[in-house]
Amino acid sequence: MSKKPLRIGLVGYGFMGRTHSNAYRQVDHFFDVPYQPELKAVCGRDRAKVAAFAERWGYESAETDWHKLVDRKDIDVIDIASPNDTHAEIAIAAAQAGKTVLCEKPLGRNLQESRAMVEAAERAGVANMVWYNYRRVPAVTLAKQLVEEGRCGRVFHYRAKFLQDWTISAKVPMDGQGLWRLNADVAGSGVTGDLLAHCIDTAIWLNGPISEVTAATETFVKERESTLTGEKREVKIDDASAFLARFANGSLATFEATRYALGHKALYTLELNGENASIAWDLHDLHRLQYFEYSDDGRLRGWRSIHITEGEHPYMKQWWVPGLQIGYEHTFIHQVADLLQGLAENKMRGPSFRDALATEGVVDAVLESARTGQWVKCKA
Amino acid sequence: MSKKPLRIGLVGYGFMGRTHSNAYRQVDHFFDVPYQPELKAVCGRDRAKVAAFAERWGYESAETDWHKLVDRKDIDVIDIASPNDTHAEIAIAAAQAGKTVLCEKPLGRNLQESRAMVEAAERAGVANMVWYNYRRVPAVTLAKQLVEEGRCGRVFHYRAKFLQDWTISAKVPMDGQGLWRLNADVAGSGVTGDLLAHCIDTAIWLNGPISEVTAATETFVKERESTLTGEKREVKIDDASAFLARFANGSLATFEATRYALGHKALYTLELNGENASIAWDLHDLHRLQYFEYSDDGRLRGWRSIHITEGEHPYMKQWWVPGLQIGYEHTFIHQVADLLQGLAENKMRGPSFRDALATEGVVDAVLESARTGQWVKCKA
Amino acid sequence: MSKKPLRIGLVGYGFMGRTHSNAYRQVDHFFDVPYQPELKAVCGRDRAKVAAFAERWGYESAETDWHKLVDRKDIDVIDIASPNDTHAEIAIAAAQAGKTVLCEKPLGRNLQESRAMVEAAERAGVANMVWYNYRRVPAVTLAKQLVEEGRCGRVFHYRAKFLQDWTISAKVPMDGQGLWRLNADVAGSGVTGDLLAHCIDTAIWLNGPISEVTAATETFVKERESTLTGEKREVKIDDASAFLARFANGSLATFEATRYALGHKALYTLELNGENASIAWDLHDLHRLQYFEYSDDGRLRGWRSIHITEGEHPYMKQWWVPGLQIGYEHTFIHQVADLLQGLAENKMRGPSFRDALATEGVVDAVLESARTGQWVKCKA
Amino acid sequence: MSKKPLRIGLVGYGFMGRTHSNAYRQVDHFFDVPYQPELKAVCGRDRAKVAAFAERWGYESAETDWHKLVDRKDIDVIDIASPNDTHAEIAIAAAQAGKTVLCEKPLGRNLQESRAMVEAAERAGVANMVWYNYRRVPAVTLAKQLVEEGRCGRVFHYRAKFLQDWTISAKVPMDGQGLWRLNADVAGSGVTGDLLAHCIDTAIWLNGPISEVTAATETFVKERESTLTGEKREVKIDDASAFLARFANGSLATFEATRYALGHKALYTLELNGENASIAWDLHDLHRLQYFEYSDDGRLRGWRSIHITEGEHPYMKQWWVPGLQIGYEHTFIHQVADLLQGLAENKMRGPSFRDALATEGVVDAVLESARTGQWVKCKA
Repeated sequence: MSKKPLRIGLVGYGFMGRTHSNAYRQVDHFFDVPYQPELKAVCGRDRAKVAAFAERWGYESAETDWHKLVDRKDIDVIDIASPNDTHAEIAIAAAQAGKTVLCEKPLGRNLQESRAMVEAAERAGVANMVWYNYRRVPAVTLAKQLVEEGRCGRVFHYRAKFLQDWTISAKVPMDGQGLWRLNADVAGSGVTGDLLAHCIDTAIWLNGPISEVTAATETFVKERESTLTGEKREVKIDDASAFLARFANGSLATFEATRYALGHKALYTLELNGENASIAWDLHDLHRLQYFEYSDDGRLRGWRSIHITEGEHPYMKQWWVPGLQIGYEHTFIHQVADLLQGLAENKMRGPSFRDALATEGVVDAVLESARTGQWVKCKA
Repeated sequence: MSKKPLRIGLVGYGFMGRTHSNAYRQVDHFFDVPYQPELKAVCGRDRAKVAAFAERWGYESAETDWHKLVDRKDIDVIDIASPNDTHAEIAIAAAQAGKTVLCEKPLGRNLQESRAMVEAAERAGVANMVWYNYRRVPAVTLAKQLVEEGRCGRVFHYRAKFLQDWTISAKVPMDGQGLWRLNADVAGSGVTGDLLAHCIDTAIWLNGPISEVTAATETFVKERESTLTGEKREVKIDDASAFLARFANGSLATFEATRYALGHKALYTLELNGENASIAWDLHDLHRLQYFEYSDDGRLRGWRSIHITEGEHPYMKQWWVPGLQIGYEHTFIHQVADLLQGLAENKMRGPSFRDALATEGVVDAVLESARTGQWVKCKA
Repeated sequence: MSKKPLRIGLVGYGFMGRTHSNAYRQVDHFFDVPYQPELKAVCGRDRAKVAAFAERWGYESAETDWHKLVDRKDIDVIDIASPNDTHAEIAIAAAQAGKTVLCEKPLGRNLQESRAMVEAAERAGVANMVWYNYRRVPAVTLAKQLVEEGRCGRVFHYRAKFLQDWTISAKVPMDGQGLWRLNADVAGSGVTGDLLAHCIDTAIWLNGPISEVTAATETFVKERESTLTGEKREVKIDDASAFLARFANGSLATFEATRYALGHKALYTLELNGENASIAWDLHDLHRLQYFEYSDDGRLRGWRSIHITEGEHPYMKQWWVPGLQIGYEHTFIHQVADLLQGLAENKMRGPSFRDALATEGVVDAVLESARTGQWVKCKA
Repeated sequence: MSKKPLRIGLVGYGFMGRTHSNAYRQVDHFFDVPYQPELKAVCGRDRAKVAAFAERWGYESAETDWHKLVDRKDIDVIDIASPNDTHAEIAIAAAQAGKTVLCEKPLGRNLQESRAMVEAAERAGVANMVWYNYRRVPAVTLAKQLVEEGRCGRVFHYRAKFLQDWTISAKVPMDGQGLWRLNADVAGSGVTGDLLAHCIDTAIWLNGPISEVTAATETFVKERESTLTGEKREVKIDDASAFLARFANGSLATFEATRYALGHKALYTLELNGENASIAWDLHDLHRLQYFEYSDDGRLRGWRSIHITEGEHPYMKQWWVPGLQIGYEHTFIHQVADLLQGLAENKMRGPSFRDALATEGVVDAVLESARTGQWVKCKA
């Protein structure tokens, strides 16, 4: 009724443009939030496509130049969902224009871009957030609660991987419609910035800072056709990336990401082993958490498969009834719900640009270690 | 753009009112449908609550008397999501008023009511549909495709169960806010009409007509408090219901539903065993289908756990990318997508009132068998 | 060293002859038992085969007529592992000769034979036991402990099934080498006595007496070739059998067995739902128990998958180290260990002939109900 | 009948002494092997214990000095199942005495010892074998068949881990009864030689040589009590060990082992991702293989959970019937069956001392990399 409007300008109408738009449209159907998102404008380079997107999702207007979006006085939030090579420039301009800035992950293509983004946002004093959406999977949020309650005790191990298989065929082109992720100039890196960044963000959130890493990357298919030029070009991104890490808390970790693990579509898995409890989760069954507690009666100790659909589980009271699961896009709705609450209370819930910079620091260390063959200390 | 509007009048703002409203709001974000649902009015007895619901979901108006809804000329569709004891009267009136009628399951509280509803709808010649939403779980739709393609061959066995645990405590009251399901006057029956009806609808859809049944029902907690009167009253619904069945195709089946199976929230499971292939599915991991094919190499035969997130899977091309799962509410969105397509082509995709009547025929036979201790032939 | 010998005479050298012989040979390698089994003789109709079996397993002698076995003074125990049609005659003769009598399940081919066997054994006052081996799966024994400790509270539901798929092909002959299970004259019944009997024995052990049943059986392949005569003969056994049951404790149950469930080889599953805890187990992963306890913190409630390999688990201290699983044949070794202990203490641990008679009573009621279409009270 | 005897002298009567003895006693009950193992002698330092062991398992004699065993003319095979610090000396002496030499893994405590053992065995020309038993899990042997048949195509990834949790408590002493695994002087290394060695052996067998590694090890509990001296001593073994590896075939791998992963008892898992098929397995459900094949119909592609209990599966025809699983100790029985066949055909099936040396080369590289922080090339 008396909800304040929050006027959104979205840049990008691809996969992430859809997830964000859906979140804005859905959030107040399920959450009692202090703001009402208003979809003022969406911006993209292809006039016809951006217009169609605007109509489908109910944006009041469409732009083809993001500068216009930044200049518009009727927009409070610039939400960046365009390819990685545009993040820094837009975010900095938006911050300087005093907008709240939301940015898809990763922050920049590299540490330098990312630092500039953090600096711009903090200097301008604008609210900011990065869409590391997996923090808002209810099972993952529950894991965070359990760690914060001290249920795990001293942590010995952390392990995460993100396995896909969509680039095994050498016929997948390097670029063209929606395929910028194989182009190093646009993406910055391959799976390290795309997939491992998710793993790293959650890992730091759950288990604290990562101190140092040793890494290996691989490019299995060396050349791919560019559908833009019709020619074969050298593939410069990392097809696969793995690293060992030491956390500041003394725990030892393994991380791996690839797009060459046949049979796995988006298998993001994580596990944390503490002295009193262990926790495991995977994205292919995102509505479950695996939990093992040492204090259970010895005969009856076992991994509990917790079906995360109860009112007591994070975010779930807002959805359906016990037993009925939610899916992927809900993580973005949760993130918007937290964003709106955070803005109203002037107490943002993160991850902020600065939080994301810590992840970029690890990404940078991983890529450096893969180049040099040395252990590299992480810095942000 | 040039989409025709389809003007909806919804009765009921409870659990099902939410799932239907969400489906109307979401369908055209993801599906290219020939109609644009317009939320004209929602009707409920509590003026304040229905108004709040209308605002949350964007209904243009709120009514407290469903007769008004039926009378309104600006409404094309009456969608009944109110308790079971209201289904027949509203549906018949809506049909007589020439509206498209959508009705939550079960159809009526008993076979008599259900027959009257079918008759009214068919006599009026109005489009009609019952919300047996589980047909539109992509995994279940895929199961239907596999059966229709003849992949299973002769079917020997079918088994289904729907297990919940929310009424184990004798302190759960019989009625009051949203709790009409334990009141036989309102609900018609207990788990037979509530949960088994889902199992039966899918079973008939996948495996054809059920010929005869032998059944047992049980009421474990004999008395519950009515929060309306503050007194203890006899519980007349079935807390649990199980039956054996023979299908017309000669296969033998077991069915079971209960609200007393601790540890199971909404565990609807089904399995079909054919001579060439077997199929199994469960609602707690609704985005997976289990499939076993005899023609596989003997050494490598195994149940395949198919992650139903590929573009080749029913409905999934409209959603995200492989590996990313959808949830419960999407089944209603799919049903609305099919409804709109069916209306445009004048070729409804079901389940129709008549389809649902077959399920009511089995429900009726189950309850009769439980009373009489005899095998009962199913009739609709 | 000072262990007393227990002199065994085994009848039958088929599948069960092997499991029993293995148990006798293995028991004292792992268990500290008061007797040392001595394999005195094995008996079978085919002289060459029984001799080969005797050599492989270390039996001192081989016989072709079981009467001789019963007459021998140097034999303490007659162990019957021959087809069902031989059980009664041998067991009765052995009891009358004062031998300890062990009998493969089911007891007799029907209730009449079974009663005669119980009577003979009890009149002779000889120790007796039936090989319902699944009680000695450590996970199942643990389930029994949990029930006895009262952890489950009032029981609402029990469900069990035993699914196989080896007779789907109409080319499987009715009899011939080792194939007497499809011949009703030899076997007594089909899956009811063969597979459901296992389910019923465990059910009664865990959940108490079964009061009444309603059942359905089916014979999918009506004729099969007899490899003995080369002719097609009518198949008289039940290929599939399902029943609903009420237990004396008021719980409601479903049971099913078949050899036509493609994809399942020996999928014996059981589940018990109590008001405080639920327990589930299946034979395809026999070294795990699934356990759900309501008293766990609500957020962290989930089915625990207990890996039954700890020293605290029944029988497991005698085997390897945590994490290392045992298999099928170990259930027979456990049964022999308990048998030897029971004999030494003059306190047999069962199941006795009389225990098995209760199962036969249910089998009989199931078959009668399938014939008559009526609910039938179980009697033994 | 006319089977030749193979006269065994076993050194060590601990955990591995039991598994080997059981294998010798069981092998000819299930496999048609050309030799009959004869248990001539077992050797151990504690006279009473070794005598009890001899009686339990049927060894004809007991020795307390292994030199006597090596000297005995009535012994063909010296089987070394004593702690790691004894392997080299005994194996070399046994080889020089012309015995067939079987050795528990790892070969020696370090590369130097291991090389001396290979040299001694090969110079003496004696048959030799190392007990890397997991190759003989039927599911793992099937994986090997699939790889050899070329079903996987080019391999991109291999990953393995071996997780335990038994040393989390700081109260577990460093040595004393059976606890030499935490004492670096006896064990050589911690989890690297104990657990990772298993992972490496299987990995090389399935996926070929490992070229280079980068590793990290950790000792979480720095001091433990010695029950021999009653004093606290520095723990010098690695509690946890992880490494990244490149195989000669270009695939990228992660390996990890620890005794600090709460909830995992002996979770050895492996996975191989090829361009056409992926394979995964874990020891906690050793009777299953997970298999994913790209050539399956896209809609029906899924990980197959293959229950390894069919006659078509490696070794399984000798055991029970489909659906009935075997356990851990069977791997040793299979290894003895292959050993006996290999001896008869003068064509040993491995793993030989030389095969095991390749594993020791990787272990050595891992430990060096963990010390130096550098990538290390593997050499044997």
